[in-house]
Amino acid sequence: MNKYLGEFIGTFWLEFGGCGNAIFAAAFPELGIGFAGVALAFGLTVLTGAFALGHISGGHFNPAVSVGLWVGGRFNAKDLAPYIIAQVIGGILAAFVLYLIELVDSPAMVLVILSPGKYSLVSALLIEIVLTAFFLIVILGSTDKRAPAGFAPIAIGLALTLIHLISIPVTNTSVNPARSTAVALFAETAALSQLWLFWVAPIVGAIIGALIYKVVGNEPQS
Amino acid sequence: MNKYLGEFIGTFWLEFGGCGNAIFAAAFPELGIGFAGVALAFGLTVLTGAFALGHISGGHFNPAVSVGLWVGGRFNAKDLAPYIIAQVIGGILAAFVLYLIELVDSPAMVLVILSPGKYSLVSALLIEIVLTAFFLIVILGSTDKRAPAGFAPIAIGLALTLIHLISIPVTNTSVNPARSTAVALFAETAALSQLWLFWVAPIVGAIIGALIYKVVGNEPQS
Amino acid sequence: MNKYLGEFIGTFWLEFGGCGNAIFAAAFPELGIGFAGVALAFGLTVLTGAFALGHISGGHFNPAVSVGLWVGGRFNAKDLAPYIIAQVIGGILAAFVLYLIELVDSPAMVLVILSPGKYSLVSALLIEIVLTAFFLIVILGSTDKRAPAGFAPIAIGLALTLIHLISIPVTNTSVNPARSTAVALFAETAALSQLWLFWVAPIVGAIIGALIYKVVGNEPQS
Amino acid sequence: MNKYLGEFIGTFWLEFGGCGNAIFAAAFPELGIGFAGVALAFGLTVLTGAFALGHISGGHFNPAVSVGLWVGGRFNAKDLAPYIIAQVIGGILAAFVLYLIELVDSPAMVLVILSPGKYSLVSALLIEIVLTAFFLIVILGSTDKRAPAGFAPIAIGLALTLIHLISIPVTNTSVNPARSTAVALFAETAALSQLWLFWVAPIVGAIIGALIYKVVGNEPQS
Repeated sequence: MNKYLGEFIGTFWLEFGGCGNAIFAAAFPELGIGFAGVALAFGLTVLTGAFALGHISGGHFNPAVSVGLWVGGRFNAKDLAPYIIAQVIGGILAAFVLYLIELVDSPAMVLVILSPGKYSLVSALLIEIVLTAFFLIVILGSTDKRAPAGFAPIAIGLALTLIHLISIPVTNTSVNPARSTAVALFAETAALSQLWLFWVAPIVGAIIGALIYKVVGNEPQS
Repeated sequence: MNKYLGEFIGTFWLEFGGCGNAIFAAAFPELGIGFAGVALAFGLTVLTGAFALGHISGGHFNPAVSVGLWVGGRFNAKDLAPYIIAQVIGGILAAFVLYLIELVDSPAMVLVILSPGKYSLVSALLIEIVLTAFFLIVILGSTDKRAPAGFAPIAIGLALTLIHLISIPVTNTSVNPARSTAVALFAETAALSQLWLFWVAPIVGAIIGALIYKVVGNEPQS
Repeated sequence: MNKYLGEFIGTFWLEFGGCGNAIFAAAFPELGIGFAGVALAFGLTVLTGAFALGHISGGHFNPAVSVGLWVGGRFNAKDLAPYIIAQVIGGILAAFVLYLIELVDSPAMVLVILSPGKYSLVSALLIEIVLTAFFLIVILGSTDKRAPAGFAPIAIGLALTLIHLISIPVTNTSVNPARSTAVALFAETAALSQLWLFWVAPIVGAIIGALIYKVVGNEPQS
Repeated sequence: MNKYLGEFIGTFWLEFGGCGNAIFAAAFPELGIGFAGVALAFGLTVLTGAFALGHISGGHFNPAVSVGLWVGGRFNAKDLAPYIIAQVIGGILAAFVLYLIELVDSPAMVLVILSPGKYSLVSALLIEIVLTAFFLIVILGSTDKRAPAGFAPIAIGLALTLIHLISIPVTNTSVNPARSTAVALFAETAALSQLWLFWVAPIVGAIIGALIYKVVGNEPQS
């Protein structure tokens, strides 16, 4: 069962990161995301997802890959259908969350100060929680004893790059209370008044991510 | 014989990825591919090709490299001519496929909805099949027991980055039916009506890629 | 105690590199840093910091990560408070140094020739010292016997990329006296008259970085 | 003696690649090199140079690094002076070759067809020879038994990215006769008439690079 969860989570990440990046950054063509940024984001979803979940599900995240691995003699036919179903559901759920974040981005709501795209507090909370949860999944997965040894700094560092590619337009990206606190102290804006957001959302997200990895990674209780 | 096939396939990939990226993206200079994107694409063809095929042919993909390795005492003189012939034929075939994709990109044909470059269905089918085939070759090759252990997520993730660098202008890039299905469900366009394309082409491509790797990698039958 | 120092240093690096890059480059939107450059810089602070300090403190550099690792059963509750304190102080000190560099960037002071952002000598000295110190911490840390073997060229090379992402606007980036000497000899500007700066600051920074790593890394005396 | 040669070659590469990229691309700001491209190029000179030469000289390529490693107890004081001298000479020679390439870029000479910067044949020959020589040094060095195992595809692939970052403005970058032949056959320009250049220069460069690595790497004769 864990391997189907792994494919569900990994394809969610691929869809959320690759398409989210393209959607949120679309309003800022002059700032250098462009095709190359989208290309990098899609690649990093798989790079980080495969380091995090490869030892659990093999890290396909793609029905064509599952079919190809089956044809290539590396994957069992009986897992083909559940893998594809998990991948499609994971992708759809991610697209739905992206749709939600855009939906709640309404001028009638409280806006996030310093949000380049003038997103609302609810959008900001949502995206910071989702992204910090995945950050923890990548951290816990890539440092798992079953993951390739030594590569964790690459997986984790590039996960943070990916997280920024996705969410700079929404929140200027935190996923890190220390980073936001330091900047807010020296900012000449009202950033301090919203600093609570960048403590609450990342910590809630981190707890959710850790609990998810405990389930999918079958980690022993602390 | 397999090593000559490896050089043929790898040089096809180098030419198709490096030059294809430059050709297709040339119409979108403002979106950030530029020289840096082309540079990244060329490098990633070799990075991914060498992880996928290095254990089969050494991963030269370049007559000058074969000559240099021979001078450096790392390569047998008797392989020099067949390697160079395989490389030149691989490069020419890739240039021909690129030429074909551009050729069938005619306004008289059915266009792909959401294609940034307004490419035709035939162009889209062709490029999605070729790219998914290579995606599977990289996946099967980099996870081969003879390939360096642990690096597969880097090779596979960056292969997806390369695939996007090449084909965003043509199809917005799928090579993944789950990713395209999820997006089509929430798109406010007629994307759903063409979704079949992004199931058929990637799966056909994946099967072709798996069969190619079975031959060139001498994989046991499943 | 060393692990708290490691978190302090690593979070300083994350804040200094990630936010510094965004602040200094903000005046040059047309030169390609943009969101993608900021995303890359943030990711590289963690990639390089984790290779350099991961074997000392685990490389959290983020209160949410420490909380998540504790929930995930990978981190001891008693270290949670001191880790978060070290991270917040490290971030604040980095933001303060960034503030200082901007503050001393006054037109009344001696400007650095060839500085794209027309920064002053004091700003230039400060940033070259800080960045070379961190360059040495990454070099000494990633080649430490306790760090993952073989990855040092990746950590060190990408640290230099990060250093350039941060400081091209300030000094065109040196952190390397040989590189600056060679360019100054062929420059058609008065660059030679300020060459002393690019010998003094990098060497002072390198000595400081080496001494810091001796303390935090518990290295034996030479 | 080999280690001094290693530092000389590596610092030449750092200077040639990092500064060359900035100089040649300066005329094409709109195509996406910008600060990020320069930052990437500088980092990749060290990443590739350290994989290629790290097992020979330690891969400092920088007087400040040598001083810092000595202070950190990792480097012998008696090597400090010769290392710094080798680094400075390597950097100056690279700057001189860059100066030469710009110097012979005269409208009175035969121009290279398709050269974005309209460079002359002599500039093109020079840069293709130098870059293919370094490509072979990286290939032979990173696949040397003393280099970290498994990383060669990363070093070699990113060396090709770096080579393109440097030389697209000059020759559209070949360093690969197969790649140039394939493109020339389908080009609607007179590219075929200059194809000899992209066979001669890369092969001459590859032979030079292989001979250099034979000396500096103390490789046994074939």
